[in-house]
Amino acid sequence: MAETAYAKGLEGVVAAESAISLIDGKAGKLSYRGYAIEDLARHSDFEEVTYLLLYERLPARGQLEAFRRSMRQGRDLSAPVLDMVRSFPPGAHPMELLQSVMAYLSGYVEHRIQHSALCNCRQTLHQVAQIATTVAAFKRLRAGESYVPPRPDLSHGANFLYMLRGAEPEAYEGEIMDKCLVIHAEHGFNASTFTARVVASTLSTCYSSISAAMGALYGSLHGGANEQVMTMVDEIGRKENAAAWVNRALDDKKKVIGMGHREYKVKDPRANILERYLVEISEKKGDSRYYEILKEVERAFRARMETAGKPIYPNVDFFSGAVYSLLGIPKQLFTPVFAMARVSGWLAHVLEQRVDNRIYRPESLYTGPEPLTYIPVEERV
Amino acid sequence: MAETAYAKGLEGVVAAESAISLIDGKAGKLSYRGYAIEDLARHSDFEEVTYLLLYERLPARGQLEAFRRSMRQGRDLSAPVLDMVRSFPPGAHPMELLQSVMAYLSGYVEHRIQHSALCNCRQTLHQVAQIATTVAAFKRLRAGESYVPPRPDLSHGANFLYMLRGAEPEAYEGEIMDKCLVIHAEHGFNASTFTARVVASTLSTCYSSISAAMGALYGSLHGGANEQVMTMVDEIGRKENAAAWVNRALDDKKKVIGMGHREYKVKDPRANILERYLVEISEKKGDSRYYEILKEVERAFRARMETAGKPIYPNVDFFSGAVYSLLGIPKQLFTPVFAMARVSGWLAHVLEQRVDNRIYRPESLYTGPEPLTYIPVEERV
Repeated sequence: MAETAYAKGLEGVVAAESAISLIDGKAGKLSYRGYAIEDLARHSDFEEVTYLLLYERLPARGQLEAFRRSMRQGRDLSAPVLDMVRSFPPGAHPMELLQSVMAYLSGYVEHRIQHSALCNCRQTLHQVAQIATTVAAFKRLRAGESYVPPRPDLSHGANFLYMLRGAEPEAYEGEIMDKCLVIHAEHGFNASTFTARVVASTLSTCYSSISAAMGALYGSLHGGANEQVMTMVDEIGRKENAAAWVNRALDDKKKVIGMGHREYKVKDPRANILERYLVEISEKKGDSRYYEILKEVERAFRARMETAGKPIYPNVDFFSGAVYSLLGIPKQLFTPVFAMARVSGWLAHVLEQRVDNRIYRPESLYTGPEPLTYIPVEERV
Repeated sequence: MAETAYAKGLEGVVAAESAISLIDGKAGKLSYRGYAIEDLARHSDFEEVTYLLLYERLPARGQLEAFRRSMRQGRDLSAPVLDMVRSFPPGAHPMELLQSVMAYLSGYVEHRIQHSALCNCRQTLHQVAQIATTVAAFKRLRAGESYVPPRPDLSHGANFLYMLRGAEPEAYEGEIMDKCLVIHAEHGFNASTFTARVVASTLSTCYSSISAAMGALYGSLHGGANEQVMTMVDEIGRKENAAAWVNRALDDKKKVIGMGHREYKVKDPRANILERYLVEISEKKGDSRYYEILKEVERAFRARMETAGKPIYPNVDFFSGAVYSLLGIPKQLFTPVFAMARVSGWLAHVLEQRVDNRIYRPESLYTGPEPLTYIPVEERV
């Protein structure tokens, strides 16, 4: 690459090799370790997918049972972490809390990986399991409710809803929640995953790397799009208003959130799966308002885009917010729920980065001043 | 760049433009915003250099006074942060605490920068000022001593030593400490600074970005080299042993820490400055043991390297650990002291990244399996 040319945001620049997931943007396909996302959503669950991401293969029955046990044993929060949640400033965002808690947890475990490519993070799994508990504790303590300790007999998704509500969710709710985690668990070198890899490349701990990735996911250009989709749905209010809303937005050259993706030229395969969940949960709850509004938005948007010769399709964020809303999850928790899922991908990337590591140290192009002479403050004008 | 070739660790790849510092590796020169590091070390101080990095120019007298006031007002820790320090696990590293505290502080201030390139972090400065206080509090509370609140009449460096010791340092000690912060404040796109920029590119908060950078600096391939230099000095014990130690290390193909730098082909300009400080403090304290050992190591190392036709010189880490040790700073705090200084550079990069932002999203080269068929757990072998 010539010294005067560079790719802003490293777009199109290959940063590393990776065997974790494959995004085929033209065919609209996504796979983890070779398994199609549709198959994993249909047959697997979040714990098994976490195993798959971390160990590069599906577990045998005994391995899966041991792994589930280990993850479930790591769910409960220690007293100092609960204190952090309790004393966290009222106006603060739960992503700030999660970033802080992840780094704090680093102090609790034997994970010293200095001068070594590996740590025992695949055994401890606190950094995966405790995110859900921290998010649920944050929501309850903020609302003046008591902390609900985790239940080891529930799936990761069902247990999250249980801790959030203080009551066991319906079976279908727990299952949909868990599947939502499956399809959000991994998606290549996005900014948060790349952050995790850069931090891991210094041979810092996996907790430090996960904490840093949280910081990236918190940014409004990264996590948070599904929150904005639901803000749009609330603004539209009823399906009859949707087409006019979309046309006005497009006339005003506003971005319609949840539409299009840098990687996919066709419909994001995760959007198809989420649409089915939204249909199911809407039927079960007898409330299809969100779904109807979203379908009208999609129809009106695609009609305009096809006229302009630009086929743009819904992405993963288009339906997920409505699913979460129907599960009773407040909007502020959408990005933390994203983090609950993506942590498994982050951790897989941290492990992969360390195996054949080189510290990230790119160059920059100097655009600053020529040499200047220091002038004492008394003589400055 | 061809899809099949890539630069590991992004070595040689330009990731962005930057006007903050210039490293001239061939001439052995480093400048911040056009000012030579030697001039800044001689005439300036850490607060002024922080202003220079954040505002792109040296301040007028009134600006400097207001900036000092603001930074000093931000030094004291709140009760919840002191609680975090207190309840932090005994075996944990202070870098883990710093990463956690930085993210926690994000909740305390009005810094919402969603959809905006700017935040008010140049006004609050908690993330710069409170690192020193957190480090000092960590050291004292761990040792069973009480928290020493900051003093607003001391420089950043002198106040750090005051909080660490509970007694005012000698004037020359405070000055050397402060100058050490000046020369460590900024150094281009190293892994921690790059991490800060990647996180900032998502439009996360500056606290989130600084916290993430802490995680990268914690890695043993990034911060921590000066700690290893002092471990070597302790192992050597007396100057008479130095040459034999170095020759044995080189015969065993071991790396001699503190020698050589990816960026500099000649002596790191910061090493020259630190050597002068080490001479001064050794004289003042009447203890030149560290200095004598280090000079013998340098002499023996360079003799061997010149014979091999590879001139390799001391880098910034070679003398700094000895300076810190003579100032009474324990080895475990060396990387946190690095963070105390580098935060100003990180923050300058966060601000610069946001002005003409594009989210970092590089590509990866897929090396994973071909499509696989999901097999239910009962049927797996």
